[in-house]
Parts: sequence; structure tokens; C-alpha cells
Amino acid sequence: MSKNPDAFTRLINALKILPNVGPKSAQRMAYQLLQYRREEAQELVDALQNALKQIHHCRLCNTFCENELCDICADSSRDGKRLMIVHMPADVSNMETANCHDGLYFVLMGQVNPAQGMDISAIALDKLVERLQQSDVEEIIIATNFTAEGDATAYILAELFKTLPYKVSRLSRGIPLGGELEYVDAGTLAQAVYERRMVKE
Amino acid sequence: MSKNPDAFTRLINALKILPNVGPKSAQRMAYQLLQYRREEAQELVDALQNALKQIHHCRLCNTFCENELCDICADSSRDGKRLMIVHMPADVSNMETANCHDGLYFVLMGQVNPAQGMDISAIALDKLVERLQQSDVEEIIIATNFTAEGDATAYILAELFKTLPYKVSRLSRGIPLGGELEYVDAGTLAQAVYERRMVKE
Ligand SMILES: [Zn+2]
Ligand SMILES: [Zn+2]
Repeated sequence: MSKNPDAFTRLINALKILPNVGPKSAQRMAYQLLQYRREEAQELVDALQNALKQIHHCRLCNTFCENELCDICADSSRDGKRLMIVHMPADVSNMETANCHDGLYFVLMGQVNPAQGMDISAIALDKLVERLQQSDVEEIIIATNFTAEGDATAYILAELFKTLPYKVSRLSRGIPLGGELEYVDAGTLAQAVYERRMVKE
Repeated sequence: MSKNPDAFTRLINALKILPNVGPKSAQRMAYQLLQYRREEAQELVDALQNALKQIHHCRLCNTFCENELCDICADSSRDGKRLMIVHMPADVSNMETANCHDGLYFVLMGQVNPAQGMDISAIALDKLVERLQQSDVEEIIIATNFTAEGDATAYILAELFKTLPYKVSRLSRGIPLGGELEYVDAGTLAQAVYERRMVKE
């Protein structure tokens, strides 16, 4: 029988909800928080409580947001004609850092999983359709991941748009910037050859 | 510039205090908590807040504890003549599961780090000395890890006991070299207790 106090066991169980945290690391985490990081642990309590209370979804793009609209959707200088569809908020941040898209976003907040029956309830399709009905969007850029889930999600989206009057594109696949052929995996290399861009015809 | 709302950024920063959680996994963790696990996240808030408020150190053995004494120290059926010294509370749990020690414990709540100058303030030596002054202890079992830190801690403890009237032993090396007690199976652990070597009689 474990002799841990109840509050400690409860904390360990609560920590196990974190991704990739099993019983052993939860135990170690609880120990470190209580023994060495009490102030930071209190900040974690406050930050998480605050996030749970304050963070909802942007009415237009569906990303995490503390107001009705996120900063990007509220920014009238963005190009409302181009809508980029991504998996999650981190993708928006990353794209903004890359500074290569001045249109708007739609965040699916999920991916379709082909290994689990292509359940489309995982992505916010209804909200996307609603979003498009009240918009000036002309071009849609599918920016899902290049994984089985991202490909499946892109496929579902392409099907959805088949009969709708939008230009639809997807991010190109290829060799990463600064990538040396020697170190690129064969699949990526093959893709880069198949999808080669014409430089001169 | 990141377009994440402030509450989200604050949560990401707070999550980075967890062991082995970098910026990318903190971002992913925050996303998963807010998107899929809001109820469990609320339980994490409550459990951690409760632990920070309720959990202190046992007056006698120094482990985490909600009362003045932990269950083990408060249990009069335990053998007060044998005191096992361990690194952290998880080691006590593990040892209790192995069911091979019916004496008491002392939890150092730290280890001496030989790579950082053998700073003994990392372990609760003063409290250990104080604990021994008011006790019936005859034998001390050093059950630190078989790592550089655990060996250094055992060395410091053996030095401390050199002039004191206790039998002192250390767990046998049935435990694999480099192994940490927390991850050793119960059978191996029991063997190491039964075969403990006398360090001083
Ligand atoms: Zn928005
Ligand atoms: Zn105790």
C-alpha cells in the first residue's frame, strides 16, 4: 500500500492527464514541484485557472482568443480574400513568424484520423462553412500537416470545396530551406522531384 | 510577432517549469488542455493548489505529509530500531510496495552532487541529526541511489556516522549499476535489502 498522503496521490493523478506523462514521471514531477518549485507551481495554478476562464474560440477563425475576435481577425489591414486553413493555434503563430501570409486564417482545432475511421467531427467543419458564407474569401490555402492525419484532413477539405466557387491550393512539399540533399529522406526527395517547379519552359 | 492571446502565452510559460517540457511541448500541452481536456485541467488546477496548501514535511522523517506525522511515523507497529535513509518520497512508496522493511524512514529530499562541489545543503542533514537524537535507532540502512549522486550522498552519510554508535549498512548491489531506486522492480529491491552489506558494526 502506498503511504503517500492523499493530496500527493491526487496531484500525481492530475498530472497524468498531461501528454506523454506516465505514472513515474507524474510522481517525479509532483516531487519536483513541491520540493523545489513551489512559487512556479503556484504560477502554473494561476495561469491555467486564468486560461480556463478567459480563453474561448475566436468567433471567426476559431483560434484560442480572449475576446470575441482574435487580433488577426480584428485587423482590417489583412487581406480578407485569402483564407488559410490550419490544424491548431501553434500553426498560426508559426506562419505569422514566417511572415508570408497576410490573409486570414481558419483553425480546425483538430485533424481527421484515417486510422480511426475518418471521423470528421474532430475538425470544425460546420464553423468553417458558416465562416465562408459571410465572407469575401476567393482563395483557400490548405495548410494542414504532411502526415497521414494532415493528408486525410486535406482530402476532406478538398472534397468539401469541390462544388464551391473558391480557388483552392495546398502548401508545396519539398526540401526544407537550407536542406542538403545528402541528409533529406528518400520520400521527401522523391516528392521534391515529382513536384518540381518549372524555371524555364 | 506571435498573435497568441496573453492568457495562452502565460500558460505556455508556466508549463515550461515542468521537468523535460520545452517551448514546443508546452505549446502543444496548452493546446491539448484547452481544446480537449478542460475538465481534467480544472482538476489539475485544484489538485496542485490543494497540494501546495496542504503538503508539508513530516516532523520526523521529512517526507511529504499533510499532518504533523506521516502514516508510517505514526504507526507504532513499525520497528523504531531500524532507520532507512532515502532520497525522496517515491523511494519510500517503492520500498513499501516491496514490503521488505518494517522499520522507519528518513527522506533526505535531495542528493549531494559531486559534479557541483558536494554541496551538503541539498540534503536534510541537520534534520536527520536532530531526528536521531530523540530516537531508539540502532541500525541505519543507507538506501540512496547507485548513481554518482547517490554514492556521494552515501559517502557523506557514512562520514557523518563514523563516530556515532549506529550499525550502518547500505543496500547491496543487486540493483543494476546506474539504476535509480524509483525505477527498480519490487523483487530486485527486496533482494537488495536482504543482502545489504554492513558498512560499520
Ligand atoms: Zn480570429
Ligand atoms: Zn514521517
